[in-house]
Amino acid sequence: MRVAFQGEPGAFSEAASFGFFESPETVPYESFEAVFEAVSSNACGYGLIPIENSLAGSIHQNYDLLLRNQLSIVGEYFLRVELCLIGFPGTRKAGIEKVISHPQPLGQCAVYLHKLGVKTEAVYDTAGSVKLLKSSGEKTTAAIASRRAAELYGMEILEENIEDNLENYTRFLAIAAQPILPEGEAKTSIVFSLKNQPGALFKALSVFALREIDLTKIESRPLQGKPWEYLFYIDFLGALQEERVKRALDHLGEYAPMLRAFGSYERAKPA
Amino acid sequence: MRVAFQGEPGAFSEAASFGFFESPETVPYESFEAVFEAVSSNACGYGLIPIENSLAGSIHQNYDLLLRNQLSIVGEYFLRVELCLIGFPGTRKAGIEKVISHPQPLGQCAVYLHKLGVKTEAVYDTAGSVKLLKSSGEKTTAAIASRRAAELYGMEILEENIEDNLENYTRFLAIAAQPILPEGEAKTSIVFSLKNQPGALFKALSVFALREIDLTKIESRPLQGKPWEYLFYIDFLGALQEERVKRALDHLGEYAPMLRAFGSYERAKPA
Repeated sequence: MRVAFQGEPGAFSEAASFGFFESPETVPYESFEAVFEAVSSNACGYGLIPIENSLAGSIHQNYDLLLRNQLSIVGEYFLRVELCLIGFPGTRKAGIEKVISHPQPLGQCAVYLHKLGVKTEAVYDTAGSVKLLKSSGEKTTAAIASRRAAELYGMEILEENIEDNLENYTRFLAIAAQPILPEGEAKTSIVFSLKNQPGALFKALSVFALREIDLTKIESRPLQGKPWEYLFYIDFLGALQEERVKRALDHLGEYAPMLRAFGSYERAKPA
Repeated sequence: MRVAFQGEPGAFSEAASFGFFESPETVPYESFEAVFEAVSSNACGYGLIPIENSLAGSIHQNYDLLLRNQLSIVGEYFLRVELCLIGFPGTRKAGIEKVISHPQPLGQCAVYLHKLGVKTEAVYDTAGSVKLLKSSGEKTTAAIASRRAAELYGMEILEENIEDNLENYTRFLAIAAQPILPEGEAKTSIVFSLKNQPGALFKALSVFALREIDLTKIESRPLQGKPWEYLFYIDFLGALQEERVKRALDHLGEYAPMLRAFGSYERAKPA
């Protein structure tokens, strides 16, 4: 079972792949586009992509890619993000002058880094920052990444759990070429557009409220080429195979010029 | 009239300041935090911050900063974002091997840059990429920024309007220490939290729909420290001084544990 993920070995997406799948063969790709392409072309059976972080919010690029590709969502997984300060073996925290990582972990350790009194530099990838650090040979620089990234590159953890807020979780989605019939409690993800009319969103949400379907997420994104019109991405409890869900989506279709279901999947417990 | 903006001279935020205010004295700050701080401390009477781009979506950091600071929104302004490829005087597009800019303009020119067949490198600021380029002296590197940034640093525009999608607009908000009484057609921005209960958002939106108050924007952000609970940021047409708006917000208060109005301001025409 080949699972595509974005980033370098040691990425949190890779850790999530090991958490969600049984014995996956994880395959790293440079970009999220490449992950979608790998699954679309059957180079990999599945992809695992981050969609939302409890501190930073949604990863909008992946919402856009879900829309542009014809893949299905077949699962979700929550991962606690534990960030480590990583340096060369034998170095000490007090000697660090510069810290490199992806902008997101840098932002999530902003208070910690300010107290440490170091310069920061944004690089392309979280686990990749450890790889870059190693090849640079700079002993006064540290990286921020996962425990596993430190181990993979033979580097030392100078401090663990350095994130400013420990309630740091990422929600991942498993994507595949074909939809599944979910087991257990199901969740469904859809996207739709609305005409720019008063009360349009209220009417759209009524199709769920009137049928007591519980929304778990709503996200708006600009509709490209139509400034200040929006797409809405919604997650709700229930499966596409249920009669009340079918009726709700039929009803939604009366208001929504565009409506697409990304699939139903088993609801995961937040980590 | 001192107006704080984020970025280097030549930033789009500075251009928007000249568009919105009459003869402002624009003052550059390194970060959005510093812009909020400058207005909070009265170092500047106003700040101008980007809040939303028609292609990339909301600038979430500024939603978070609105919440963390006690400033009021006193105006909005729409700016057409026109991106230029900028190089050293006398260089030619064909000789460019690397292009640097802030990740957002790099993303907005992704197709163009792919066709050009160049490497890209993300830097901290759009206008700042021209400053960096100039100080690097690298003749085979180009930057992506505004026409004004090219002129300010004495560099040459190798090509104009290189963005992949010409429907590229940014909405800016003017912030100040005190709220205003808006003239003309008014818009109001608020933020509220909801209990994690079925139908909560539907009920919240009903307070506007039942009074025929037109929403122009809805944005959800994670509530820090409470994973998978959300804050909602809403813009609607109408002013806080109107009776129906007062009643709607009273009604919303019945559902929302937290509710704050950022102010009312004159609605701007999209550019």
